[in-house]
Amino acid sequence: MAADGKPDEFEMIARFFAPLAKGEAGALGLGDDAAVLSPPPNRELVVTADSLTSGVHFPIDENPRDVATRLIGVNLSDLAAMGADPWVYTLALALPEDWEPDWMEAFSDELNTLQERFGLHLVGGDTTATPGPMMLTLTALGTVAKGEALRRGGAESGDRIFVSGTIGDAALGLMVLKQGIEGLEEKHADVLLSRFHRPSPRVVLGRRLNGLATAAVDVSDGLIADMGHLARESGLAAELLSARIPLSDAAKAAISLDSGLMDMVLAGGDDYELLFTAPQEAAAGIASLAAELDLTLSEIGSISDGKGKPGEVRVLDENGQALAMSKKGYRHF
Amino acid sequence: MAADGKPDEFEMIARFFAPLAKGEAGALGLGDDAAVLSPPPNRELVVTADSLTSGVHFPIDENPRDVATRLIGVNLSDLAAMGADPWVYTLALALPEDWEPDWMEAFSDELNTLQERFGLHLVGGDTTATPGPMMLTLTALGTVAKGEALRRGGAESGDRIFVSGTIGDAALGLMVLKQGIEGLEEKHADVLLSRFHRPSPRVVLGRRLNGLATAAVDVSDGLIADMGHLARESGLAAELLSARIPLSDAAKAAISLDSGLMDMVLAGGDDYELLFTAPQEAAAGIASLAAELDLTLSEIGSISDGKGKPGEVRVLDENGQALAMSKKGYRHF
Repeated sequence: MAADGKPDEFEMIARFFAPLAKGEAGALGLGDDAAVLSPPPNRELVVTADSLTSGVHFPIDENPRDVATRLIGVNLSDLAAMGADPWVYTLALALPEDWEPDWMEAFSDELNTLQERFGLHLVGGDTTATPGPMMLTLTALGTVAKGEALRRGGAESGDRIFVSGTIGDAALGLMVLKQGIEGLEEKHADVLLSRFHRPSPRVVLGRRLNGLATAAVDVSDGLIADMGHLARESGLAAELLSARIPLSDAAKAAISLDSGLMDMVLAGGDDYELLFTAPQEAAAGIASLAAELDLTLSEIGSISDGKGKPGEVRVLDENGQALAMSKKGYRHF
Repeated sequence: MAADGKPDEFEMIARFFAPLAKGEAGALGLGDDAAVLSPPPNRELVVTADSLTSGVHFPIDENPRDVATRLIGVNLSDLAAMGADPWVYTLALALPEDWEPDWMEAFSDELNTLQERFGLHLVGGDTTATPGPMMLTLTALGTVAKGEALRRGGAESGDRIFVSGTIGDAALGLMVLKQGIEGLEEKHADVLLSRFHRPSPRVVLGRRLNGLATAAVDVSDGLIADMGHLARESGLAAELLSARIPLSDAAKAAISLDSGLMDMVLAGGDDYELLFTAPQEAAAGIASLAAELDLTLSEIGSISDGKGKPGEVRVLDENGQALAMSKKGYRHF
């Protein structure tokens, strides 16, 4: 016990984190210098890392369960975009002096729930003190059958562009949180807030896109920005049809109050849907996958055939006119 | 380019970090959602993560090359303690607004040097902004032959205890930095400072201990604390002989000025030497390994045979009397 009556580093690991490592023997109960893991045979490893800082990536008073959901969500979304199965992760926690055991209890309990849902385990990490805000860094390891990983750079000329779920909810939810959207019904505001607070990675979809999609990326920086990443890596341009972009009823309600909010749909981040390309022949397979997963998969455009510079993204309105974009998506710097 | 004329997140990755990923094709140039790696056949993965925060784990005005050295050092020291070969790593960087491109240039250049020295590559990460101090989190992946990883819990009754290099220099170096050691010659102070600023992980030694050592841990929390970790995991007690603990000439000089500094040798952290156990029969093999590596490997005690509680560490002076310890090693909380 530390001088302030709170658990010290070792007690904290024993109480909150060692239970999260129980399902993976190679984690050695978090009691050794490192974990020792046997990678599944004939699989490649998929590795990603993302950090969240309190007050930057989530509100300082965010519910600890929602912090856990976001932390797991942003990382597993990257694995999903590669078509990988989650496997194990490390967690580095930097804690300000006023951290609360109750907060940590709820946070680790939610991690446990998410681990069971997604089939992954904690295998290591670090807890440190910081004079700054709380910061969490997760490195996730997934696995994928050899040669089957989905890449950003695989799109081909003429491919159709698809996106899962609905786009823009998280950015609109953040707006509700920060300044409100005047006139928006509470039920719609709640949906948007929920999508901001509790992102859900498309792990099952990603895994099933192997063999269907030619390229994929997750929508974290914003639809236009991430479309640009995929197009640039593929060396091609993309054309999106504004009217095809899937909107939730809540987003439609917000935009009906202020049509300028459509910019936030196109440029806002944090949706954690999958944006992917596939040849026209795959459309039927994608439709039946959508039905099977009970998840909307919308065709929203195409990879340009000789039009536009590599990485360029044009958004066309209902009359085929290119929209002028006022934002280019969220960048951290 | 961001509004302040500094590289934005994407330019920063292209300029400072993508070059560090060049040697590993699976890093995909840091241009995808995640890396896709083929683990070497018949090897297990060894995974560890450690964070450093400016002003907590290193001085706020620390040379960027020394920050890189410490970041790589603390993580590879954990891999070394498992007998693993370094392979790849992810790096999460949280930067305050006043970060300087020159700082990043030197930091990434030193990472490049260390990668070549230790044979590892960057494969992913995250750069974010923080209102707090700079924070760096590294997750390192190493590999080890199946079943060959060194564990903390493998020590057996009667085993001898060995430690590499010299102990206490880093803690004394930190003391030189913070308050000075009165009367200490500059050449000695320089040695201690250097050991604090530039920890060197015992990667080659760790790899060679497979087949010789029964258990190992790196000395990061302090000699007594880490001895306790090894003893506890092995379910046995340990006895160290104070006079056998290897000291540098600089540490000897400091202790000759103030004998109380011996406490810092026993309890101070950050040496990043390896502490390991081996049966008496292995002594000749360890001596020849020391000669081959040109590295001091000192026998400093033994795993108790029925004496003491599991995890207990007794330190005996030259007369066989147990020392009373005033500190129990460095804890972060």
